[in-house]
Amino acid sequence: MTSALHQCVRRTIRRHRLIPEGSRVVVGLSGGSDSVALTFVLRDLAAHGGFEVVGLAHFNHRLRPSASRDEQFCRELAARQNIPFASESADVAAHAAEQRLSLEDGARRLRYEFLGRAAASLGAGIVAVGHTQDDQAETFLMKLMRGASLTGLAGVYPRKGLVVRPLLDVSRAELRTYLGSLGETWVEDETNGNTANPRNRIRHHVLPQLNATLGGSTGPNLARAAATAREDTEWLDEVADGSFSELVVTDADELAIDLAGFALLPRPVARRVLVRALRKMAGCREVRLEHVEAALAVAAGETGGIDVPGGRMEPRGSKLVLIQHGRGPK
Amino acid sequence: MTSALHQCVRRTIRRHRLIPEGSRVVVGLSGGSDSVALTFVLRDLAAHGGFEVVGLAHFNHRLRPSASRDEQFCRELAARQNIPFASESADVAAHAAEQRLSLEDGARRLRYEFLGRAAASLGAGIVAVGHTQDDQAETFLMKLMRGASLTGLAGVYPRKGLVVRPLLDVSRAELRTYLGSLGETWVEDETNGNTANPRNRIRHHVLPQLNATLGGSTGPNLARAAATAREDTEWLDEVADGSFSELVVTDADELAIDLAGFALLPRPVARRVLVRALRKMAGCREVRLEHVEAALAVAAGETGGIDVPGGRMEPRGSKLVLIQHGRGPK
Repeated sequence: MTSALHQCVRRTIRRHRLIPEGSRVVVGLSGGSDSVALTFVLRDLAAHGGFEVVGLAHFNHRLRPSASRDEQFCRELAARQNIPFASESADVAAHAAEQRLSLEDGARRLRYEFLGRAAASLGAGIVAVGHTQDDQAETFLMKLMRGASLTGLAGVYPRKGLVVRPLLDVSRAELRTYLGSLGETWVEDETNGNTANPRNRIRHHVLPQLNATLGGSTGPNLARAAATAREDTEWLDEVADGSFSELVVTDADELAIDLAGFALLPRPVARRVLVRALRKMAGCREVRLEHVEAALAVAAGETGGIDVPGGRMEPRGSKLVLIQHGRGPK
Repeated sequence: MTSALHQCVRRTIRRHRLIPEGSRVVVGLSGGSDSVALTFVLRDLAAHGGFEVVGLAHFNHRLRPSASRDEQFCRELAARQNIPFASESADVAAHAAEQRLSLEDGARRLRYEFLGRAAASLGAGIVAVGHTQDDQAETFLMKLMRGASLTGLAGVYPRKGLVVRPLLDVSRAELRTYLGSLGETWVEDETNGNTANPRNRIRHHVLPQLNATLGGSTGPNLARAAATAREDTEWLDEVADGSFSELVVTDADELAIDLAGFALLPRPVARRVLVRALRKMAGCREVRLEHVEAALAVAAGETGGIDVPGGRMEPRGSKLVLIQHGRGPK
């Protein structure tokens, strides 16, 4: 089977070297259209691609009324397709509250931990998940709107550790058409319509307005912009890593940046060195562009010391010093 | 007078060194709230800033029914403030049609040409124009949505040649509050409500939705993202300029890139070298991210020759060659 959809997914896999020859792949299956389509597309491609889909892994977040229906749907799909099935459930809400994480962050953390375990138990080296071009565009706009620091703008990565995202260049609409052509169904997330959730507002209000303004789908263009931002950032990060190790001395709860060397850095590298330093102080708190801007002003001698997430930043002689407050929650 | 608004504008001027000591400044005055506020803020700052506002310059685009009312408003403001006034008008619609430019591009070109002449005639070295943080956010979203190539994403520059934009960190709402406090008025652009215009759709539909999603103004965050993109791009452009002169040989209607050297470039630099090459072929046609992506595939040997704006790109031995079609319009 080689539809345009399959070709597009194969191109994404090749371009980012997502699935090496001989890989054993587990698919993260929520039961939604994206991950169901991913299951079928990867099974089709496996035959010619020299890899094997060795399991479907479902994580039950116990967050929605339909959580057990979704799990059942996934279990049956696996049985019908004759693919081993792994599932776990957890009280995500309790975990998030305990770790002081947002529900979304808590859920993500537990889900990926589970996917790692599922891969290990099935002898798989790769976990494929169903993020699409739509997710890419939504994530990019959300991070943009919230003033995420630089790396944040890079959007969704095609590969991170074990996890790969072969559908990043495909739209959700294409996947649903494909499932329809197979006569396959999926479960609808009933919280999708809840516009108190920022992602849903972006999906149902902002993106349609952008599409209407352009007179076409902005998804591909936003995804391209995110991909370009990712490439820029990856290289600038490498350069900044080098400068960071040259200019920064870390010591227990303090970190000192050599100001003379710092002043010579090109601005994009200087920003990223500060992002690294701020992240070290911040722990799991978010570092935003406004923090980086304030820190640049201190480094340039325009302002005195400032509070930063998790600590304080102050000039001290030839150094710019970051002092960590009493250790926060990990 | 040193309101928070004045301090913010002064900071922008200092940070980007927009108005050197002793400058003679002409203000581009449309009669809208932004440029009227700019006139008053700069007059206030001039006293302490060591520069002088030596003229107001109005360009009559003859595009709107209210065009002569606007010109009259500006002329009276100048007379009341006792500042020399310069104006010109032109048939923008005819010019744009003749040059095959969009109305917006044609208007911009004629307007900036006029502003340059006005500055020269008033002995001014600087032209200040009224772009705000709102313009920055709108422009950024428009370019993002249209898949503009990399430099496009950088948004509105604080300085370009003679032209400076001291209001880039200030919102339109702040400026209107300020004018209200002075008892000053401005002319409303009656085409602002026309949502057939993409910028107006962004302004009246997309941005309010983004603001509602965030629960606050996204303008500052979008402006920060644009500013960061600009910094990244400025430095990456410098690096790419160096690589371009090393690797590219230009010749009459042809341009050849050394493929071995090109293959060694970090991806963000490689992209920008291609953007430069494509721009040389494209003349006044737009180079978009999709063109750059297609060109990267040719350079990587993934595809054969392709059409590019204004010409064709083909691998030829150890070179990647761009051949210009018969010369297009300037």
